[in-house]
Amino acid sequence: MNHSLNKRNGVAIVGVGATPFGEHWRKSLRELALEASLSAVAEAGIRGKDIQEFFIGNMSGGMFTGQEHVAALVTDFLGLNPAPAIRVEAACASGSVAFRQGYVAIASGLYNLVAVGGVEKMTDVQGGWATAILSGAMDTEWEAYFGVTFPGIYAMIANRYMHEYGLTREQLAKVAVKNHYHGSLNPNAHLRNRITVEDVLKSPLVADPLRLFDCCPISDGAACVLLAPANEARKYTDTPILVGSCAQASDTLSLFGRRDMCTLDATRHAASQAFEESKLSPEDVDFAEVHDCFTIAEILATEDLGLCSKGRAAKLYDEEQTFIGGKLPINTDGGLKAAGHAVGATGVKQIVEAVRQLRGEAEKGRQVKGAEIGLTHSVGGSGATAVVTILRRGDSIP
Amino acid sequence: MNHSLNKRNGVAIVGVGATPFGEHWRKSLRELALEASLSAVAEAGIRGKDIQEFFIGNMSGGMFTGQEHVAALVTDFLGLNPAPAIRVEAACASGSVAFRQGYVAIASGLYNLVAVGGVEKMTDVQGGWATAILSGAMDTEWEAYFGVTFPGIYAMIANRYMHEYGLTREQLAKVAVKNHYHGSLNPNAHLRNRITVEDVLKSPLVADPLRLFDCCPISDGAACVLLAPANEARKYTDTPILVGSCAQASDTLSLFGRRDMCTLDATRHAASQAFEESKLSPEDVDFAEVHDCFTIAEILATEDLGLCSKGRAAKLYDEEQTFIGGKLPINTDGGLKAAGHAVGATGVKQIVEAVRQLRGEAEKGRQVKGAEIGLTHSVGGSGATAVVTILRRGDSIP
Repeated sequence: MNHSLNKRNGVAIVGVGATPFGEHWRKSLRELALEASLSAVAEAGIRGKDIQEFFIGNMSGGMFTGQEHVAALVTDFLGLNPAPAIRVEAACASGSVAFRQGYVAIASGLYNLVAVGGVEKMTDVQGGWATAILSGAMDTEWEAYFGVTFPGIYAMIANRYMHEYGLTREQLAKVAVKNHYHGSLNPNAHLRNRITVEDVLKSPLVADPLRLFDCCPISDGAACVLLAPANEARKYTDTPILVGSCAQASDTLSLFGRRDMCTLDATRHAASQAFEESKLSPEDVDFAEVHDCFTIAEILATEDLGLCSKGRAAKLYDEEQTFIGGKLPINTDGGLKAAGHAVGATGVKQIVEAVRQLRGEAEKGRQVKGAEIGLTHSVGGSGATAVVTILRRGDSIP
Repeated sequence: MNHSLNKRNGVAIVGVGATPFGEHWRKSLRELALEASLSAVAEAGIRGKDIQEFFIGNMSGGMFTGQEHVAALVTDFLGLNPAPAIRVEAACASGSVAFRQGYVAIASGLYNLVAVGGVEKMTDVQGGWATAILSGAMDTEWEAYFGVTFPGIYAMIANRYMHEYGLTREQLAKVAVKNHYHGSLNPNAHLRNRITVEDVLKSPLVADPLRLFDCCPISDGAACVLLAPANEARKYTDTPILVGSCAQASDTLSLFGRRDMCTLDATRHAASQAFEESKLSPEDVDFAEVHDCFTIAEILATEDLGLCSKGRAAKLYDEEQTFIGGKLPINTDGGLKAAGHAVGATGVKQIVEAVRQLRGEAEKGRQVKGAEIGLTHSVGGSGATAVVTILRRGDSIP
């Protein structure tokens, strides 16, 4: 079986926009999506009606706000009618799966300009209800109905991983410490407070061994990117970013169905295909934005993407190599953990952050020096869906 | 702005499957989707792992059943991992928008075999809750929150249309009478009772002028089709059906935002593009499956698709031309009105019906004689999304 693309065009990102992630009490789902989309459109200096197709990632507009048909809503208010509007859903990977559809639309030669947005408005529901809604990303009948929530799922993974590979509670905390540090430098992050290992260890227990500071927040937010064929990119921007590859893979929806609780095979498949398609290897990656919904998820991602070998991620954290300035900066904007997790928007927001890093536009202290190649990684549920995208500077585009 | 596709391959349908639509009290969302998908796979004689990508249309898995991430669920249980799984949502047009993504995946030359499913499990919620969930397809903040439901929206359209074009209450009833008659011949239809104009006029008032028999039922069901490049279609089937074109367009999400309450511009745009792309005209169409969520919707569709001129649809019904055997058979399986409306599945189920008609496989009394070209038409919300697909017999495929 061959999942690789028979591409007709190179694909470039020619405009990006994002709202800050956080609690946007005064902005609706539609307003968030419009704000992000309009910044992307303004950046690329296009008219809305140049956009031929609009994809939007959104996980649970219905359950969070009552609003389905989200792509039509946003396309309408952006003034893009009659362009086709397509909402894509794959739980917390919704934004990146939407991005991949946009990538395919350009790579195939079918279109010359498409927009990919992602949006989620999560904070209008009460307390535990958001956690209940998010359990729609797991196997509802065989996991959620028996009472497990996502903190519980990832706690089981963490326990097993600590048992198999000797990861310590302190090492796990270092993921959060690093991401909060990066978040403190990012004006658009949801959580900007710096924390220590001790803060993590003293924070309230959520699902043993995971504590409050091991879990990402529930955020409102939106992001948008514009895609065009690489050979037309300079019409829109002086700093086009090339999409080297974008690959998606699936695995069992349930955690109990997995081959190995400590490995996300979907991540491994997607990464292997993304590296093959872009003719790059993990050693080429200058920085990565990975899916750290819980601290343990970042450990798995780092290994399953091939950025280090299995069971060796903790060492990178002990040596502080994943900080900006280290050998392999991870989650330079704070990741889901500190920059926030507006589920349908997150995959697109990761792309926006990678584009800004590759353009050299990140704020002081946050810029990865000389970054040429960045990777983004997004996970739906506990690993049923994974998407890996490799981006590179577009200097080679004439 | 050009929305037409730069195609690399012709696209053929090489296998179809569908569950009956109705109240499936003993089958879950997953079981319905599997049943339909497995029949399509069996029909094409493929192994599941030949499928390179799986698209699924589903409107509100979250609100109806708690389950989002529906594509990953179905892909997993079909044994297709690690193939990419993509859920597409566009309200009641979810299935047809998913179909269009599958069509694009093949037309672009990116893939050689993709599956497109559609599924909805709607009857597990209580009474009016389904109507509330469906209101997520309109502009929630500016329409639903003020109390209007879909029967109300379509009642406003019907009133305006009756005022503008002199449509009578009796003529409107004839749409339902014809669709129930067709449904009575279809063993997979949700409603199989024949009704008279008098039955419609005596049925309970839902939203003036619409009565119970003007409204489609709320159904459970699933459908699936397999797509391949036309020049490979004979590997899978002796009766491939060609997708001449598949076009999608958007309009305002709200009814109050429309240019004209009695015309769905999204249908007009999609139809005009679909005819242009397939180099066919409305006169070439032998039968049509159109979106008749309410009787008035079928009247609008018939006109906006160009199958007759504006304001003239009622005449076709007076002359009984839309019955099987008439000049222009419409909704040969009973349509949404009688065959049922499992919202995410409906757009795919329409394709399944059109394929069976073009293959000459419809049951006795239901077959459109000599059908060579069929059209399907799907609407999301009150007309924010429309998709038009033109199918033709694949005799020309070598």
